[in-house]
Order: sequence, then C-alpha cells, then structure tokens
Amino acid sequence: MAKGLTRQSDDFSAWYNELISKAELADNAPTRGCMVIRPYGFALWENMVAQLDRMFKDTGHVNAYFPLLIPESFFEKEAEHVEGFSPECAVVTHGGGKKLEENLMVRPTSETVIGYMYSKWIQSYRDLPILINQWANVFRWELRPRAFLRTTEFLWQEGHTAHATAKEAEEETLRMLEVYRSFSEDYMAIPVIPGPKSEAEKFPGAVQTYAIEGMMKDGKALQMGTSHNLGQNFSKAFNIDFQTKDGSREFVYQTSWGMSTRTVGAIIMAHGDDRGLVLPPRLAPHQVVVIPITRTDEEIVAVNAVIDTLIDDLKDIRVKVDDRDQYRLGWKFTEWELKGVPIRIELGPRDIASGQAMIVRRDTGEKQTIPFDQLGVKIAALLETIHHDMFNRALNFQAEHSRKIEDYEVFKASVEEADGFIQAHWCGNAACETKIKDETKNTIRCIPMAWEKEEGVCIYCGEPADRRVVFAQAY
Amino acid sequence: MAKGLTRQSDDFSAWYNELISKAELADNAPTRGCMVIRPYGFALWENMVAQLDRMFKDTGHVNAYFPLLIPESFFEKEAEHVEGFSPECAVVTHGGGKKLEENLMVRPTSETVIGYMYSKWIQSYRDLPILINQWANVFRWELRPRAFLRTTEFLWQEGHTAHATAKEAEEETLRMLEVYRSFSEDYMAIPVIPGPKSEAEKFPGAVQTYAIEGMMKDGKALQMGTSHNLGQNFSKAFNIDFQTKDGSREFVYQTSWGMSTRTVGAIIMAHGDDRGLVLPPRLAPHQVVVIPITRTDEEIVAVNAVIDTLIDDLKDIRVKVDDRDQYRLGWKFTEWELKGVPIRIELGPRDIASGQAMIVRRDTGEKQTIPFDQLGVKIAALLETIHHDMFNRALNFQAEHSRKIEDYEVFKASVEEADGFIQAHWCGNAACETKIKDETKNTIRCIPMAWEKEEGVCIYCGEPADRRVVFAQAY
Repeated sequence: MAKGLTRQSDDFSAWYNELISKAELADNAPTRGCMVIRPYGFALWENMVAQLDRMFKDTGHVNAYFPLLIPESFFEKEAEHVEGFSPECAVVTHGGGKKLEENLMVRPTSETVIGYMYSKWIQSYRDLPILINQWANVFRWELRPRAFLRTTEFLWQEGHTAHATAKEAEEETLRMLEVYRSFSEDYMAIPVIPGPKSEAEKFPGAVQTYAIEGMMKDGKALQMGTSHNLGQNFSKAFNIDFQTKDGSREFVYQTSWGMSTRTVGAIIMAHGDDRGLVLPPRLAPHQVVVIPITRTDEEIVAVNAVIDTLIDDLKDIRVKVDDRDQYRLGWKFTEWELKGVPIRIELGPRDIASGQAMIVRRDTGEKQTIPFDQLGVKIAALLETIHHDMFNRALNFQAEHSRKIEDYEVFKASVEEADGFIQAHWCGNAACETKIKDETKNTIRCIPMAWEKEEGVCIYCGEPADRRVVFAQAY
Repeated sequence: MAKGLTRQSDDFSAWYNELISKAELADNAPTRGCMVIRPYGFALWENMVAQLDRMFKDTGHVNAYFPLLIPESFFEKEAEHVEGFSPECAVVTHGGGKKLEENLMVRPTSETVIGYMYSKWIQSYRDLPILINQWANVFRWELRPRAFLRTTEFLWQEGHTAHATAKEAEEETLRMLEVYRSFSEDYMAIPVIPGPKSEAEKFPGAVQTYAIEGMMKDGKALQMGTSHNLGQNFSKAFNIDFQTKDGSREFVYQTSWGMSTRTVGAIIMAHGDDRGLVLPPRLAPHQVVVIPITRTDEEIVAVNAVIDTLIDDLKDIRVKVDDRDQYRLGWKFTEWELKGVPIRIELGPRDIASGQAMIVRRDTGEKQTIPFDQLGVKIAALLETIHHDMFNRALNFQAEHSRKIEDYEVFKASVEEADGFIQAHWCGNAACETKIKDETKNTIRCIPMAWEKEEGVCIYCGEPADRRVVFAQAY
C-alpha cells in the first residue's frame, strides 16, 4: 500500500478520495461542493482537452464562447428544461452593488442562451449547419459532492449544432457519440457501451439521449459522455427558423453533446490499483519518469550526461526526470507509482557500465532492461503495448462483471451479492424501470446499440420484450 | 469602404463596433454587459492562448483550476482588494433552491481563493516556488460595456506565484512582463511600452504593478497586460507562511499577472483599416485564403486539382479555401479583406496556364505573381515580412503620435487638438496626477523602464522631476 492508501477491496470510496488527495489531482475548495483541480490533475485534463478538441475539429466543428450568466426567463421557455435544471442552479441576484431587475442563472448547460443567439444568426439554409463547441465551466448544485464525479462547478465541453433536417441532426448525434466512444477506448483505454437512454434518463428537453457507459473497478457504471438529439424542442422555444431552399420557413433541428471533468474520475476508477493511479499512456502528463540512482557527485555528473542523451532519443515522449535530492529513492518509486506514470526508468552507474537501462511498467510491475541505443523505439512501442493491455484488462473486467439474468429474484439476489452490469430484458415501460430502481438501486444505463435483438420477457413484469438492456448501479 | 463600414477618421468608435459585428468576431449577449465570442473571434483568441500558454510553460509554469465562486468574507481579508473589487462583483445569493448562508462572489480575480489554497499547500521552503497559471472567465460589472475592451464577463489567464524571497518575486514579476512584451511585439505585432504604474493606477493589493501599454490607431492607450508584485500583502492576509531552510517561519512573496480577451480589441484597433481587420500573420485563424476563379465545371475541376497540390506545399500554413458557389467573386474579396486574412491567393484558368498564382497582401494591397513551385517558400517568407512590416508601421505610428511636452498649457492644448502619447516630467506626487486626469482626461500610463533618467520639472507643479512618464487618454 502506497503511503497508507486504503485498499480498494477494503473501501473503494475511501481509496478514491485518498488517492485524489495524495496524488495531488484535486483538493476541496472553500466554496461548498467545489474542487480545485491541482496542476497534476489539470495536466491530465489538458491532454484530454487537446485530444478531444482535435477530434471535434476533425469532424468540422469550431469553438466559440457564450456567457456564463443566463437570464432566468430563458429557462422557462422549454418546459422540461426548466423543470430539470432550475432547482440545481446557482443564482446571481445582485451585480455592481445593486439588486438586478432579473435574476441571472449560472449556466448548468447552455442550450437556452445558445438557442437565443442561433435565432439571431440563422436566417437561411445557407447559414446551416452550425457546428459549434464551447469549453466552459458549468454549475449544478450538489448536495453530496465527490471530486470529479459530482461537483457543483465542473469543466466540460458542450457542442451545440443546428441542421436543416432531422436526418442530419440524428447523424450528428451519432457521429459525436462515436467520437466519445473512440476517445474513451482509444485514449482513456476504457471500454464503453454506447446506446440510447430510456425516456426517464434522457436530457431534459431532448428527443433522444445517447450515452457511453463505462464500468469502474467497483463494478459500478459511470456515464462518461452524452449526445442529445434535441429535435425541434429548443428551436420552437427560441424561434430558430430558417428559409428553406424552396422558400418556405422551418424550424432547425438541433443536437448537443458533452463530456466533462467527470471523465478524470473514470480514469482513476477504471484503471487505478492499491498502489495508486495507473494512467493511460496516451493521456498521461508524464509518460516516462527517469529516476537517477546516484550517491556521489561523480555519479551524478556521469548519470546526468547519459540522461541528457536519452531524453534526446525520447523527444516525442513526455519525460519527467526526478533528480530532486531531498527525497530518498524508495520514496520516489512509491510517489511515481502513486501518480500512475506508465513507465519508470532507473538509471545508475551500473546501468551506464552495462549500457542499458532498467525499465519498470506501472500497470504490471514487470521489469526489463533495454540497451540505450534501442530506448527510443522500445519505449514508444511499450507505451502502445501498455495502452492496449490496459484496454483489454478493463474489457475482461467488464466481461467478468456482466451477467445475463432472466429472473427478477435472481436479479435482486445478484445485486445484493455482487456489483457489475446486469443484462436483462425490459419491456420499455417506465413503470417497470422505476420499480426496479426503487427496489434495487439499479438503473437502465443504456440500450446497447451493438447488441442484437433477442426475444424474451421483461425481467420485472414478464411482458414480451425484444432486447436486453444494461442495468447497473451508477455514479 | 467594405460593406458600409464607417471610416476610422469619421468615427473610430463606430468603426470598431461595426467591424466586430460585420467580421463576426463577437455579438452582444442577452446578458447585460456580456458578449458572445463568435467562432472567427474565438479562433483568433485560441491562437493567442496557445502561444501564451507555450510561453508560460517554457518559463516553468503549470496550469490549474480554482473555483469561480468565492466566499464574500475572503475579499474582506485584504483591505485595498475589497475596496477595489467588491463594488464590481456579481453576487450569488441563492443555490440549489435556497438562500445561501454566505454570499458567493463571482470571481473578479482569484488572489483571495488561491491565497487560501496556497496556505494549505505551502508548509516548507521545499514547496516553493509555486508557479501556477489559470485560464478562466472573470466578472467585473461594467456600466459602459465595449466588446473585448470592457465586458462584464471576460476570458483571461491569471498567473499566481509564491516565492521564498522578495527578490525572486520581483524577478518573476519582471519575467512575466517581458513575456507579455514579447508576445505583444513578436505575435500581435504591436509595439508596447513596459513600465511600472503609478501608485494610483496599481492593482488593489499589489506592492507594485507593471504594465505594457500599446497605442491604438486613434492615438489612445490600451493597457494590454499587467504583472503585479504582491509582496507579502496576501500571504499575511491568508496566512501563507513556510519554514525556511534555517527553521524559522516566514510569509511567502507573491506575484500575479494577467492578459485577457481585451487584447483582441488591441489587434483590431492597432492594425485595422477602413476595409476591416488586418490580422497579424502569426495569430490569424487563416493565414492565407485561396479564392478559385472559375466559371465552368471544367474550370472548377482543373483549378481544384491545382489547389489540392498547393495546399500540400503550404502544409505548415493555415489555409482556407473559399469555394462557396453562392457568393460572387467581388463579395469574397471584400469579405476576406474585412476579416483581415494576411494573404489572398487568386487562382483561375489563366493562372494555371501560366503556372503562377496571383498573391495579394492584406496590409498593403500589393499584388505579385508567384510561380507554383516557389509558393510554399515564398508564402512563408511573405507572412514573416508582413509581420515585421505591421510591427514597424505600428511603431512609426506610435513615434509620430508621441510628443515631448514641457509646459502644462501646451499639454492641455495638445490634448485638445490631437490624440497620442505625451512624454512629460512628473514629480511623483499623486495630487498632480489627479489634477492632470481631472483637467485633461490623460492618465499616467506607465513609467517607461527603457527610458533614461532626465532632469526636469513636473509638468503640473514645476517641482523637480528626474524622469518623463507617458500620459495618454486610455481605454
């Protein structure tokens, strides 16, 4: 156990909180429910932002910025939206030393104010599609905050697009769901299940919400990104219409989609172990940490000279050299394991004499020696191997913790004895969904798109059902 | 005049507002005093952010994120700070459907909450220095908002560092002032005058504020970035002390420094002309716009084939191809001039036949033809030339609109008849500064660091003064 970190098997929740603190990912802010993202956690988030932003731009999107404070009356224009979000809002009532004529809501999401702007910007089919993304801070009042997973303020991106046809809007919704799936699997190394949400779980104001659901190491589900087809709900509420090619007027079809700092929590909980973080190589702030093993001044000079050469060889790799002299070697090993750096290189006079470095994988603990002249190529390859191994390990974990269940008594017993995903038939009735949630705390995470239809009967009511859905306890 | 843009000489302020709207840089938000940064304006800001962020990291800084909402009581801990900022704050009084026990201020700047966190993080000299930057939105209630220059919400970065000695803090303050100078001159192509502010103009809570001041095309000054030496003012207020190497305890020495979206306004006003924006090449969203000149389908095929090859040659350059068929050629020329793209390439069948492209510079309107096989090299070189020419043009403008004045009556007459910078002696007395401001609207922009001492008498009171300072009307 690193630095007195609680074991996952003893108390997963305590492990999570302690790790965030000890690895200096985040700290509690003095503002209730809010966190401070510390430099190490923020460096991870920055790498995630950079990659997602590239993927958004590669799919034709541009960034913009809309105001944080939204007039209260805007929320009342879309009935489901106001009901869903108003109770969670932080409200500005005073500004510039005076009481405001109209309260301003600190944005919980920006469909309303963006809808208002789109109604000004969109006149003709020539103005469509609009493919805008925003990186922003948002607020949803949290009574039981957890760092990264549920904080009153969090950072996210919210894409907001407007299209001439329903078909284009649905295509965009699915395109961005696929971007999220790819980002989760190809960068975070977390396998996810994509699919539509049930009516009860959809975004307030959406026609259809799609999500990607990942499994954490305690078997719980984490919704890692959502993509909403808003249909014409907001365009009718905000009067966003356009002149079609044939001269008639129609309301635009919209989408919105978001991924947030909660995904940092996913990386912690999908990969971490009793020694700390295990960061996916493609996103890790430091991909490699080099620890010089030296006792005398001559050794320091000799080792540093070799390190300088090695760093040149690793120039496309994010390398951190920890040559701080106020910490012992063992402390450093434990520290960088805690912080989840994928590869550790140890380098002392004996290694220099033999012309090879000792390499330690964080994910498996495996050690190997690599000759100096092969280091650049081998480290790059090893980082890729670690990514794929981490993904496969998480995929196997997900498979091992997923069960097909046909009987509600077995379902309930299963929920009692083990965490994980339950694959069961559901009739599509919201009443069954609510009962199951009330009785087992399991919710329908999504209706997996990749799964074939399979005739059966609803796990709750026994009526015919043509497919299984994923039930799980969720963060 | 592009698209009915008011001439600068007729009404600079109207020119500015119209240009922001017509070039689609920004729009008024429905929230009073706030703006929406539209994709074209945001792409410019993104390039500025990317470059500044590189410069911060190259000087050893890391990013983090602190909460937007700050308990009201935090502001009261530093006397000048509360007086300076509290009247400008937006205040959250309700959250989660309830009145809060303590009001939360929407951050106007983050010294207070960061000071609180630093007091938790800093225990020993080993924890120093802390070199953190934050990219964030901030709020200062504006009664007379102007897009980019003065908006209630704006985007910025705020660096906050903590050091073991006063000397290190002063070095850091000046290091970041130099980063701002370099960014302004080497990327924005705007010459600036760096120097300390007078007591009256310094940041509330700082020991010393340094600024860089640029001249806009109406002769007014714009403060483009500030770097503050906070001394121990905040560390004493927030109890940020540390154990020194010899075991005693001392309060840390701090700095803070910021640059904001107001610099987008600087780019508009320092370089723009009657035809629109003139964007500095190193930051322009599109460095080159290619406009195909085609009438028939065969011409389109032939020209597009050439464009594909050219884009490969220009692969490190940000190129936009405007092949929209719903707009006329003249409209496109005017549009991209309005949007300030540094270089336009026109390409039609005649150009293809002759194997060369027509190149038009936005800043001078100069035209030249360049053979296809030299395009990559020549365009890259031309972008550099344009940067330097823009900088020198702005530097000459600044020199032409700067006057040394020795007599207060001449000073007043000069202020009446012409805008620009006045270089005059000042005794250092705040009373003189205030009188001059009241009588002429001119403020001391800074005490230029590069200028030699020069004995003389105060322009206002006639007492001895050992250096000139810059007076100007400021945004």
